[in-house]
This record gives sequence, structure tokens and C-alpha cells, in this order.
Amino acid sequence: MAREAWGRWGAADEAGAPNRIGREQVRLAASLVRTGQVVSLAQPLSPASPVPKHRAGMQHFMGRDGGDYAAGAKRPGGFQFAEDTVVLPLHLGTHMDALCHAWCDDHLYNGFLGSTVRSTTRALRCGAEKLPPVTTRGLLLDVVALRGGPLPGDASIGREALQAACARIGATPGEGDAVLIRTGWQEAQQPGAEVDFTREPGIDVEAAEWLADSGVALVGADNYAIEVLPFPPGTVFPVHQRLIRDYGVPLLEGMVLKPLAEAGGGVFLFVAAALPLVGATGSPVNPLAVL
Amino acid sequence: MAREAWGRWGAADEAGAPNRIGREQVRLAASLVRTGQVVSLAQPLSPASPVPKHRAGMQHFMGRDGGDYAAGAKRPGGFQFAEDTVVLPLHLGTHMDALCHAWCDDHLYNGFLGSTVRSTTRALRCGAEKLPPVTTRGLLLDVVALRGGPLPGDASIGREALQAACARIGATPGEGDAVLIRTGWQEAQQPGAEVDFTREPGIDVEAAEWLADSGVALVGADNYAIEVLPFPPGTVFPVHQRLIRDYGVPLLEGMVLKPLAEAGGGVFLFVAAALPLVGATGSPVNPLAVL
Amino acid sequence: MAREAWGRWGAADEAGAPNRIGREQVRLAASLVRTGQVVSLAQPLSPASPVPKHRAGMQHFMGRDGGDYAAGAKRPGGFQFAEDTVVLPLHLGTHMDALCHAWCDDHLYNGFLGSTVRSTTRALRCGAEKLPPVTTRGLLLDVVALRGGPLPGDASIGREALQAACARIGATPGEGDAVLIRTGWQEAQQPGAEVDFTREPGIDVEAAEWLADSGVALVGADNYAIEVLPFPPGTVFPVHQRLIRDYGVPLLEGMVLKPLAEAGGGVFLFVAAALPLVGATGSPVNPLAVL
Amino acid sequence: MAREAWGRWGAADEAGAPNRIGREQVRLAASLVRTGQVVSLAQPLSPASPVPKHRAGMQHFMGRDGGDYAAGAKRPGGFQFAEDTVVLPLHLGTHMDALCHAWCDDHLYNGFLGSTVRSTTRALRCGAEKLPPVTTRGLLLDVVALRGGPLPGDASIGREALQAACARIGATPGEGDAVLIRTGWQEAQQPGAEVDFTREPGIDVEAAEWLADSGVALVGADNYAIEVLPFPPGTVFPVHQRLIRDYGVPLLEGMVLKPLAEAGGGVFLFVAAALPLVGATGSPVNPLAVL
Repeated sequence: MAREAWGRWGAADEAGAPNRIGREQVRLAASLVRTGQVVSLAQPLSPASPVPKHRAGMQHFMGRDGGDYAAGAKRPGGFQFAEDTVVLPLHLGTHMDALCHAWCDDHLYNGFLGSTVRSTTRALRCGAEKLPPVTTRGLLLDVVALRGGPLPGDASIGREALQAACARIGATPGEGDAVLIRTGWQEAQQPGAEVDFTREPGIDVEAAEWLADSGVALVGADNYAIEVLPFPPGTVFPVHQRLIRDYGVPLLEGMVLKPLAEAGGGVFLFVAAALPLVGATGSPVNPLAVL
Repeated sequence: MAREAWGRWGAADEAGAPNRIGREQVRLAASLVRTGQVVSLAQPLSPASPVPKHRAGMQHFMGRDGGDYAAGAKRPGGFQFAEDTVVLPLHLGTHMDALCHAWCDDHLYNGFLGSTVRSTTRALRCGAEKLPPVTTRGLLLDVVALRGGPLPGDASIGREALQAACARIGATPGEGDAVLIRTGWQEAQQPGAEVDFTREPGIDVEAAEWLADSGVALVGADNYAIEVLPFPPGTVFPVHQRLIRDYGVPLLEGMVLKPLAEAGGGVFLFVAAALPLVGATGSPVNPLAVL
Repeated sequence: MAREAWGRWGAADEAGAPNRIGREQVRLAASLVRTGQVVSLAQPLSPASPVPKHRAGMQHFMGRDGGDYAAGAKRPGGFQFAEDTVVLPLHLGTHMDALCHAWCDDHLYNGFLGSTVRSTTRALRCGAEKLPPVTTRGLLLDVVALRGGPLPGDASIGREALQAACARIGATPGEGDAVLIRTGWQEAQQPGAEVDFTREPGIDVEAAEWLADSGVALVGADNYAIEVLPFPPGTVFPVHQRLIRDYGVPLLEGMVLKPLAEAGGGVFLFVAAALPLVGATGSPVNPLAVL
Repeated sequence: MAREAWGRWGAADEAGAPNRIGREQVRLAASLVRTGQVVSLAQPLSPASPVPKHRAGMQHFMGRDGGDYAAGAKRPGGFQFAEDTVVLPLHLGTHMDALCHAWCDDHLYNGFLGSTVRSTTRALRCGAEKLPPVTTRGLLLDVVALRGGPLPGDASIGREALQAACARIGATPGEGDAVLIRTGWQEAQQPGAEVDFTREPGIDVEAAEWLADSGVALVGADNYAIEVLPFPPGTVFPVHQRLIRDYGVPLLEGMVLKPLAEAGGGVFLFVAAALPLVGATGSPVNPLAVL
């Protein structure tokens, strides 16, 4: 496969396509603010957050709480407090994939060795702490609006569909943009029903390449894996391989995009800052659209 | 004690002072962007992140990594990946305190019972998921610059010092602002030396009340607890009690502010979005200043 | 309810019925060894261990492993090693319930307050570290053999069934004995099928009282909760309440008893030592029958 | 290095030296019981359990507790309960090393590849679930009594010292024995003082080889690593390499042996059963001496 972005920002680069967000892009993005409405694009995060069957969910433990005081704990100086700890898989809920999350041919983005990601060291290269904050122009490509409803479980979204969605908002993906794709996967789920992680509408490789070649800094979606599931025969996560490894484009999965669509968001100031988790393969985020 | 903000945004409100950030504040904040420089204000987060002795640090485990492939794991379709899980105390590193974190007299902000925060339910009221995103005007009150260097370990910062710091940037805290106080605590630490969590420069109660009465939405600092340690005799976390419980002001602790000062940031667009951790007493964040 | 064992071993006692195992019982138990065959009565413990839907399973993380060396980690002095960490719910797999696990009327066994079990302190009374090692005569009450197969999902096992099972081995529960009840619940489960934790064969309250009045030190079974599920109308875990709280009898749940039956074990030396987990409500164990 | 035990119990063997415990050994061990006194040889296990600086300690979280009820939680059918979860490093406190814990030359005991121990699969070979229960004759080699007090921090214990300790109890290590070595390391620690894990008295390689050649099934000690620390120049954990990898002898570290010495235990029935943690590199245990 081609390795389009390797070397583009230097042999030592671990940030990838977010390098495309220069100060000019930030200034432009800030200038897009009109109404001042801020829309959070994150799922609630809890032990009830859905996970594929082969993965563990989040756990959340209180180390001190109001029950302690009800049971008689002292309150020196009147002070009462609660604190807690989470056991958090980093690819749960709304999260950003770091560039060390996916690769092939034993090489990560920019040619780093896959073997730099280990149990003892965690990711020495391309960890979540290397992802710059994403503060840029956001585009909502609303395929749900385009199709008149959430897409079926295995619908492949191609380049032409994305272009049609762009036409709806009168904008074209460009240098440093964050592109958010609404497939309807999440909003079509029934409350209480088990979530099916084996089928989801998502983009195909050609669409991914078109976005990356357009210069986008980040691709997000309201589904579990950005790309269509099941994969085309003979492939496994082909969009991950192309976007993350070859183009250095971080993915932002599990977004909540219906409220943004309802607020009329098409082109907006977008902000998503991964936690600087050293050597992590991803990070939970609470991305924002500022309209 | 007075309960200045109780009822101000309705009896059911769990968001507190961030309610002060209206659309007008957001628009104004966006208009402050000049150069487009984005400064992250978060510490790296890792098992090496310093913690007080009575608390556990973060743990970080790889569930799959490059070592698996080096050891012979299969790669169907060529796809290789890594994933990981953290055991994360929520008051570690750079984090926002939710309004259920601290209270007194068995009542949280806005009169909710402390007993609504339990092992089984976690925080039913005022959890981190109730904190709105903070996208507003940020002010850096640089007490380090004012005093010519990091403050000593137990320096109390009063209202007048904050006012002097305001004068330096020609701004006054107002409705919906995020105020960030640079004490120098963190930057004065020696690399490799154990961090002393029993002494830190920080604000006193009067300074806190002045900020809250000025209408700020959030108070952040580059120390561990916003307020001076040791506490004044006979008190325990008095600023937490006043700001969080009485005024509903979330605190943003453990910030990294030296790079912002060095970038000349005084008045800027500030963005910090807590993760929507349901029922949590706090959230790690990666706050941003956009200059 | 009566509180049969309260005060029996002093007002400060936190060990309960295992106090019944005196040195005489130990000597007698050791003298039962005939063939020298040792049978482990524990389930394998792994992330695949079945759990009720409302609970989280075990997680198991490698902190260092052979993959690290395959990926190039150094081996000073030739030494290579692996180490790991588990996130382990204490009522998973084969485990012993501590006397602080279940109670009613706000009082634990021997009158300790339920409020001594808190998030901050964990169990100040009757924690797993207070359970003495159980080294005593074991009796296998094989209801499966008695009935000719595993019992149906909601079969209530009464006193008479237990007495009939006793008759099969020519022994009667007595002072300090460990009684193990084979219901067939576990062995009837189909491999790969989801385990139903809402229905299980188990003893009723009268059977439990008969065992406790006989002076047993511990009651074990090959099911999830010792007692029959669903509970009799209007009750919730009535056997737990009676045995643990009123009689101070620890329960040993999730045992594997078929291999013991197949080895001809009826009366034997039984050994089960809870881990001294300070303030814990239970402990995983690997109980042994020595024939 | 020689690989003395490889192939001895077949090419597929993953149990190692505990295979030496035949039924005859078990019967003999049971016959040693005289007084019926049972002595637990385990440390209490808690977040306060000492750990080397580079490792994380145990964490212990209540998922439900008495504080919940004090705070108003419902109690259907009168039933109240508490449950908890531990985050437990498996080489903490009193624990048994599985045969996959230590190796060299990329090969585990019996020639299995080190690369079979991975993040994703955990230990496919020689995990803790492969360790048979150890029910055998125990010998206490009391070097503290021999020397008149706890040994200094870096005292190397050689074969002759072990032989002198054997002479004190009139026994010689033989086929299938569990040998427990009291160095005094733990009992010499001052309460509240930080434990030094860089220096400890322990056996040297010659002593280890003598024990293994004598046919022992297990070697335990009251120190952190069985062997002397610091290591002889140019070596790293040489006793681990020899005993675990070459002889297939599991180690039982962090034992509490003073109470056993005080009870006059020299030759006794010894029982230690690792938890069947699938693919784990070790297991916490509560070993027992029955006198």
C-alpha cells in the first residue's frame, strides 16, 4: 500500500494529519462562530455503555462517598467529600484513536515499528499524548438527512454519498478540517436492546481516501468503527489501515451527532482534545461543536 | 454559611456556575482569537503522575500490543492493532471537580443530599456528566509574574494579589469567565523529586469569594487544590466548601500554566469539556487556551 | 429472627462457626486420609468465568510478558519474566463469603453494625481476614447421585433430602464439619451457553437450619448461592440471612463437586483457606478434598 | 545451564516438581498431624501491603456496603449485603510463582516458548491453573533460630546453613517435600517504616540446587524473592532461573514463618493451593501448616 503521509511532517513526526491545522485554520474556525451555541458530541460514559461481547465494559468505584458519612464517618472542619476510580477501556464510548492503535506490515504510521508498543513500555511512539488538540473547522456530513433516515446495518458509504452530503452544506473538505459523518447507527438503536457491533453503516476505502487526500485532520462518525461492517471480503479494518497508518489521520468514534444535526450545524468551530495519556492507544473525549 | 448560588438556576439545577456561560459569552470568547495558537494546559497522564501518599496512582495495561505480533499473533487481513485499559483515579493530573465532589452539612450544591452519592449508585446528583462544556473567556492571573517567581509552599493568595494580576492583563473577572491562577507550584517541582502535597501556594477564602461574586464560571490553578495548604487553623478545604458547594463553581486542578504565560496568554478563548462520566466526582480534562 | 450463634464465642468474635473446628476436629480429619488422592474443588478463574448480568467479570492484564522479549526487551543477566494484575470481583467463581457479606436489620453476625462496612474503611468487622482456615472433616452430600442426575433449575432441597444424602455415606453432620452439597447446577450447564443465574437448585431454610443446628463450620455447594433460586415468595436470600448472620456460618459457593463424587469422596479431610483480604466481603479459594 | 527437570514428567508437563507429590507423600504428610494446631502462613493482604517502588499495590473497592443502607438504600425482603472488587497484582504479599513467571534463553520450564506468554492470551503454558495443589510434608528450615536472630539485609544462605537448619529438626529434604526457609526478613521490618526491597537475606544458587536435587516440590521463604539480594555480580535472579525454569520448582514468597517457629513447627502437614487463575504468572495463597 502507499504510505501517503509518511515523512510529510518529518521522520520523527508522531502527530500525523492534525499537523494540518495551522494557526490560519484555527483563526478561520473561530470566525465561524455565529450563535454561540455549544453542542457536546459525546455519549454518556458509564458501566452501562455498550461494548462488543469480546470486550469488558467500564467499571466505576467510589472510594469515598455520602454513604460513608451516613454511616458515621468524621468530617473534620465540616468538610465532606467523595472520590472515585474508573477502570476504563480506552476504546469505549466516544473516543479518539491514537496513531499507534492500528497498523499493518509491522509498521505504524511514519514507519515506526509495531514492536515499540509493548506491555511494559506501552506505546513509545504515536501514543495519545502525541495527538495535538484538534481545534479547527468542523463539517457535518449528514448521510441520515441525505437518505431520509438512519442507514441499514451494513450500508457502505462511498465517496459520492459524502460529496452529496457536502453539497447540502455548501462546503468541501479541505486542509485541516474535521469531518464528522452521521450514519444514524447509534440513534437507530433501541433503548435497552443489546447493541450489535458486527454490522454498522460506515464509509468504504475509496471514501476514506478521498477525505484524506482532501487534507482532513480528523475523521469522526457516530458509529463504532468509522468504516462499514462487515468488511469487504478478504479485508479486515481496511479503512483503519489506510487512514491511521498510511495517512496519519486519527479517528473519532462513537460520536453523538443527531443533536448537532438538529441544531442546524453544518460548518462550525470544532474542538476535541485527547487526554495526554502517555503511550495510550486512544483517549475518551468530549468533542464540541460551537455554532 | 451562605449558599449564594442555591436556587439561582432553579431547584433542579446540577450544573452551577457554568450556567453563567450564555451564548453571548461564547461569541465574545470566540472573537478573542488573534493568532490562532492553541495551548494545551494539561499534564501528561501516566503511572508516573504524582499523587499524594494516601492515594493510588494510575495504572495502564495493554490488552493487545506489538509484542503479541512479535511473539507470533495472527494478523487476519493484514490488520494489526493495540488496545489498552486504564485504572484511573478521577482526581489525578489535570482534572475538573464535579459539584458532587465536596460538600458540608450533609448537603451538596443546591441542597441535594450528600447521601445521594453512594457506592451502588454513584452520584445521582451533580455528577461529572452534569457539567456543561466550558467554552468561554479565559483569564490568566499570573501571580508568578507578579511576584517574580513561583510562590513558596504555603503562600496564601488573597483578593488583592488577584486584583493586581488582573491589572497586569487589563481585565476584570466577569460573568461566565474561566479564571486560571498561576502559582508556580508545579513548575517549581524538581524533576524526579517526590512532590509534597501537604504544602502549596493557593487562594484564600476571601479571594475565592471575590471571584465567585464576580460571576466566574470556573476557577482553575496550577496547583493541587486551588486553595492554600496547610489550611487556616480550624478549617479543612474551606475554599472547596465555598466555591463548589455554596457557589456551584467547579474547580480545575493540576493545570500547566507556564507555557500559556510564555505564549503571552492573558485573555483568550478557553475550552474545557469534562468527560460525561455518569455519577463521577470529577473528570480528567485537557483544557485549551486559543490565543 | 433468632440469632443462634451471637455471643456464643464472645462478644468480640468475628469468626463464627469455624470456631467449632478445634484441634480434635483437625486431628480426626487428618486421620481420614486413606488413599492420598487430592481433589481440587475449584473452577478455573478467568475473564471467561460466568457472572450474572448485573455484575462485571474478572479482568486479567499482563504487565510484562514474552511478547516484550519478542519485541526486543532487554534481559539483564539473562533473566526474563512475566507479571500480571487481575481486576477481581470477590464473589466470582469458587469463593467463600465472609461474615460481613450478608445481613439484615442493620446488624451483622454477632451484633456488629452494618455501617462498619464502608467505602473508605471496607469491612471493619467480619472481613475475610477474620475467617480462620477451614481444616476439618468434609462430607459430600450428593443430591445428584440421590436423584439420579442434576436437579432442575428451581428445585428446593429440604432437610430430608440432605438426610438421605447423609445416609448414602453413612455419616451425620457434626461439630465443625464442612458440608458440601452437590446439586448438579454447574455440571448441567452447556459449554458455551449463557449461564442462567436466576434459577438454581439449592437448599431451603429448614435444611440450612438443620445443618447449622448440627454444628457445621461451613456449608458449600456447586451452585451460585447455596440456596434455591427463585426465593420463596416474600423472601430474599433467606438462607444467607440465617446461615451467615444468625449462625455465623460462612458459605462456599461455586464449587466443582463432580470430580469428588467420581473419586468416591464421601467423608474426607477438607481444607479451604480464605485469603486474608483485609476488610473484604469474600475471598476466592481453591478448596481441597484429601481422600 | 542444565535443565534438570525438562522432560522428566513428559514433554507436555506444565506442573513441574509438584509432580513429585504422589499419594504416598500425601498419606505420609497427613500422618504427621499430632496436636491439630493449624497455623496460617500468609500476610494480611490490603492496599497497605508493602510493594517495591516500581510496582503498584493492591486496590480494594466496595461496590455495595453498609454506607449505602445508612444512606437510604432499599432492603427488599430485609436482605442487606456488601460486595467488593480488588485490583490485585499477582506477586503481592504471600504468593506462589507459577512456572511461567521466570525464564531465560526464551524458553520456559520444559522447553515451552517464552512467546506463549502474551498480552492477549496470557500464559498459554505453565500458568497458575497448571500448579497442582501442594499437600505434602513441610519442613521449616529456621535460619533465624540457627543464627540467633533475623539475618542482615544481604546475607547469603548457603547449603551448609540449610543443612544445619535441617539438623535442628532431625529431617532431610526429600521427594515431594515443601521446604520453608525462615530468614527473618519480614519480622525484622519496623512497623510503619518503608520496606527495603533491594536487600534481603536469601539462599544462594548452590543451596537452591541442593534443595532441588533433593527432590523438593516447592521452596518457600519469608522474604520477597527466596534468593539473596543484591544478586551476585553479573547475575539477575539466578535462583529463579534455576529453580523455576530448570527444575520446575514453584516458589512461595512473602510467607509469615515466625508464628510457625513459635508453635514449634519443624516437620508437619503443609497445604497450599494456588487459585486456578488461567494463564496467570502467580497466585495469592494462604498456606497452612497443620501440626
